[in-house]
Amino acid sequence: MDIETFVERSIGEWRSQRSAHHLAFGHFEEVRSTINIESLTVDTPGVLDLCQRYEVSPEHIVSPFKMTWEGESDWDEDEVMAGSTILIPVPDSATTGKLLREQGYAETMEAMGSYCLTDDGTFILTTAYDRAAAEEKIWFATPNLRFRVSLIKTSSGKGVTTASFSSEVRRGVKS
Amino acid sequence: MDIETFVERSIGEWRSQRSAHHLAFGHFEEVRSTINIESLTVDTPGVLDLCQRYEVSPEHIVSPFKMTWEGESDWDEDEVMAGSTILIPVPDSATTGKLLREQGYAETMEAMGSYCLTDDGTFILTTAYDRAAAEEKIWFATPNLRFRVSLIKTSSGKGVTTASFSSEVRRGVKS
Repeated sequence: MDIETFVERSIGEWRSQRSAHHLAFGHFEEVRSTINIESLTVDTPGVLDLCQRYEVSPEHIVSPFKMTWEGESDWDEDEVMAGSTILIPVPDSATTGKLLREQGYAETMEAMGSYCLTDDGTFILTTAYDRAAAEEKIWFATPNLRFRVSLIKTSSGKGVTTASFSSEVRRGVKS
Repeated sequence: MDIETFVERSIGEWRSQRSAHHLAFGHFEEVRSTINIESLTVDTPGVLDLCQRYEVSPEHIVSPFKMTWEGESDWDEDEVMAGSTILIPVPDSATTGKLLREQGYAETMEAMGSYCLTDDGTFILTTAYDRAAAEEKIWFATPNLRFRVSLIKTSSGKGVTTASFSSEVRRGVKS
């Protein structure tokens, strides 16, 4: 599977159940959310801005997309967590590349991660931040069901502080 | 990684956090448990019995082990879920084989599944039952932290009814 196919299969509205495990304390957190993924054209202003900030030529990007989410955590039911961000794959081979991510209007920060696609169709993204690193694995069980495992690691990459698992079911379709 | 190495890395006592997602209803379930994995010798009576029932020659098995667990679900805190079972890998190549599982004294049923080990060290087990199928992926993030994603599928293998995620931290060691 190449990144274009992976993004194309992800387009749509998804109902997500996410469980976070805070490993040191054995805490659980449950989040329900709706995630919307839509494709963008290369000439969308936000896409060109992000390319410019990372000095990437728009000719080298493929399948830019926008992700919007709105969710509720069981830790604070009054707080609605919502956000939106633009993501841009920059392939450097059929199965590897960089992923640029816009700051968006929520808590995300601008970042560039490295991705690869494994033989069994799993998308793996690793992103290094100042004080932490993130690893995300996303794969499809069926065309209408995606899973996502996200790890927050210490900056050395050796320890894992939080592991979370999301089941994402395409809206309007039974899993 | 071969199956002997995988089993060897799994030996020990683990503190597990498991989140189950019941997909059709969007329900969450949280389970905390302790899992103990210990190696057995080929001549342990339970091992020989299981080999005999599946007509497998003890010469063809490797790394038999016993798994014991004791846990609590948030669905019914009074019910302690405990069990124990013997598992026996029967390799048919360096990275693939069968896994025999004893009925044990809890709710598990006797079964033979097929496993493979992927290039990135993930153990994948698929087991077919009369009315359902199960798929389990287990991988190590660090020597002291394992993750496990388990899917319960319809017998056709096309739909997924329950997806669960476990974080397993070796006891007495910080993740």
